[in-house]
Amino acid sequence: MNDYYTRFIGRGDKIAVAVSGGRDSVALLHFLLQKSKEGGFTVLALNVEHGIRGETSLRDSAFVKELCSAWNVPLLAFSVDAPARARRDKLSMEQAARAERYRVFDAVLAEKSADKIATAHHLGDNAETVLINLFRGASLKGAAGIPPRRNGIIRPFLTTSREEIDEYVIKNNLPFAEDETNALTEITRNFIRGEVMPRLKEKFPEGERAVMRFCEIAREEDNYLEERARALITEGDGAYFLPVTAPKALLRRAALLAIKQLGITADYGRIHADGVCRLAEAETGACLTLPEGIVARREYDRVALFAERAEPFAERPFAEGVYETQEGVLTIAACPLSEVAFGDGAFYADADKFEGAAIRTRREGDVFRKFGGKRKKLKEYFIDEKIPFRLRGGIPLIARGKEILFSGREISEDVKLDERTERALKITYETQRRR
Amino acid sequence: MNDYYTRFIGRGDKIAVAVSGGRDSVALLHFLLQKSKEGGFTVLALNVEHGIRGETSLRDSAFVKELCSAWNVPLLAFSVDAPARARRDKLSMEQAARAERYRVFDAVLAEKSADKIATAHHLGDNAETVLINLFRGASLKGAAGIPPRRNGIIRPFLTTSREEIDEYVIKNNLPFAEDETNALTEITRNFIRGEVMPRLKEKFPEGERAVMRFCEIAREEDNYLEERARALITEGDGAYFLPVTAPKALLRRAALLAIKQLGITADYGRIHADGVCRLAEAETGACLTLPEGIVARREYDRVALFAERAEPFAERPFAEGVYETQEGVLTIAACPLSEVAFGDGAFYADADKFEGAAIRTRREGDVFRKFGGKRKKLKEYFIDEKIPFRLRGGIPLIARGKEILFSGREISEDVKLDERTERALKITYETQRRR
Repeated sequence: MNDYYTRFIGRGDKIAVAVSGGRDSVALLHFLLQKSKEGGFTVLALNVEHGIRGETSLRDSAFVKELCSAWNVPLLAFSVDAPARARRDKLSMEQAARAERYRVFDAVLAEKSADKIATAHHLGDNAETVLINLFRGASLKGAAGIPPRRNGIIRPFLTTSREEIDEYVIKNNLPFAEDETNALTEITRNFIRGEVMPRLKEKFPEGERAVMRFCEIAREEDNYLEERARALITEGDGAYFLPVTAPKALLRRAALLAIKQLGITADYGRIHADGVCRLAEAETGACLTLPEGIVARREYDRVALFAERAEPFAERPFAEGVYETQEGVLTIAACPLSEVAFGDGAFYADADKFEGAAIRTRREGDVFRKFGGKRKKLKEYFIDEKIPFRLRGGIPLIARGKEILFSGREISEDVKLDERTERALKITYETQRRR
Repeated sequence: MNDYYTRFIGRGDKIAVAVSGGRDSVALLHFLLQKSKEGGFTVLALNVEHGIRGETSLRDSAFVKELCSAWNVPLLAFSVDAPARARRDKLSMEQAARAERYRVFDAVLAEKSADKIATAHHLGDNAETVLINLFRGASLKGAAGIPPRRNGIIRPFLTTSREEIDEYVIKNNLPFAEDETNALTEITRNFIRGEVMPRLKEKFPEGERAVMRFCEIAREEDNYLEERARALITEGDGAYFLPVTAPKALLRRAALLAIKQLGITADYGRIHADGVCRLAEAETGACLTLPEGIVARREYDRVALFAERAEPFAERPFAEGVYETQEGVLTIAACPLSEVAFGDGAFYADADKFEGAAIRTRREGDVFRKFGGKRKKLKEYFIDEKIPFRLRGGIPLIARGKEILFSGREISEDVKLDERTERALKITYETQRRR
């Protein structure tokens, strides 16, 4: 036991200790109660009964209730339905119980029933977590183990060993129930805890502490790298951009951050981040399709990451009106000649020059003639205009056959106003800022 | 077996495979021989016999000799005296054998008998190393496992599993000796290899590969952090300086780098780096004495790290001559009045004003009077002049009692030339650049 807990708890804090009734959480509750007076904070207990039939959870919850009553500690008691959650989200029972438990924690914090929630994770739990994460495939964050504090959840025992807790329990003659969460602990963790850690501790009596020191520094270094990576990302047009000249160590992290920012919650492996890094060495236009419709594309001196468009814009006959695509809003309206106002950001065209035209997105073979310019491939025009590939397919065009009359950026030489114009059209186009 | 080896080997390379005669190294020799034709590189073998009586090293070396002769591979054979090295440097036998082996490797590379030396470290060795390092107290570099390449040493099997090597050995019907280095493997590693890894691999069949992926990224991130940390360090006056405003993640690394740069090879723990980081939050003048005479001191907006002076400068009577301290060289010489040349960087003083003076370094209570200035404590004068603390004790002063006549930077009002001066002294002072 040490004063590590003071890192997390300030005067006036209301701390809810998550108590399962097991040895560790009872010790934590007792320890913080002892310290609460000098520390000027208050302590309550929080128990989550997981609703697992056949488990001892109801009995353990009753134990916690009695304990709190005997110790005169306020208790926040919750019941959740872990089996239902497991069925609904296709989770193992321990994953479901954990998810439900943390859902309750978040709700308690959101309601301000407590300022912080303390869990009894300790030195041994941390070393187990590091080992499991490493052998399952961790990033630096995973190798850094259990976070001492995250959002409102704090771990005052994280530098305390299981043995120290045991001693404390004996010394203070604390009652405890067989920890209900032990029964829920996943098979892998039970194996590591029961079979591997004791052997490692035989050889490395100070091993858990060595792992913790590694974790403390790794966490700091991980945070620094994450900050630097985040600072690399720029945003615009619904895409995230990574500069290709960034160090690869940061580029990989930035790619993962951007993928997350695009709303993907699935487990995007480092293999995808590696792919994005390879684009930084590829030519402009090189493209990578990631799962869930995310596209990464080399664009000049950056890599763009964006969500692919779900629905293409369907072709429709040319007519006055408002046309919205994911890329922007095109408005076509009649305009008295007297109201033509060049330079106001709108485009003005001769209404009689659009016969047989349609509104559609680009196609292979499209051509465009700029004001006073030669006819060229629309693709080349887009390249000249540095319009990123990802935006090109979403631009609403006015076309007659393969001839583009409005490119989204300019109108064609073919439809411009001239001395014989009798009716004008006002065409406005606004790019949508997505997300 | 995969084409990982191509990362390390170019056309025209001369690769010496370190062959103990054991399964892994025989497989590596065979594998690289097979690949050498298409890869355009040449392969030779390198065997180090450790001179350990009672060990099988002589027998294994004989086996390697026969094998190379049978396979028609040139062999570089060395004998070292590991027991002598162990006695001399107080090392365990395996540490001594390893040190001697790598000494031979370095010599082979230095002599250009080979361009690179390949060792047969594999996926399992790497996972063991990570585990051992973590439980012994690793930095990120240690957690990143065995480097795939370092100086001229390469590990073409580092992503190959022990099982794949075994298969290769069987498939190619390769002969091998019981690996002599196994007998030398330290107890901890043998325990991890024999007792812990098999259990972990039961639960995590892909665990060694997961660890390797972690290592690859950790290595890249570690290198990036190391580069950034190195870039923070500035140097001067025999000291290394760290800016106090740097992120703590970098500051700790920079402190360790600076300590290493000061020539300390002992294992400076992170506890010392932590101490240096704390100085970044302390007041100017705060000081930390590290082992082996290294001092860290807060100086304004930086932390200075330097080696403490071994010998103080002994007091001696004032006389013409050359006086050298670790800080600088003071020269005192008679100078005809006609040769006094103010502004040439030397100091000129009245030779008759030094009666009873001595040459010494600073003492508590010293005072100094600048030209046209008031008398003040030497300590305050040094502060005003922003002379770092660490330099102050090494400055050769001219003093009479507590009165400083030459401060290392200026002469006192009390000894300046005046209209009655008959004999002049020329005093020059050059700061030494140490290291």
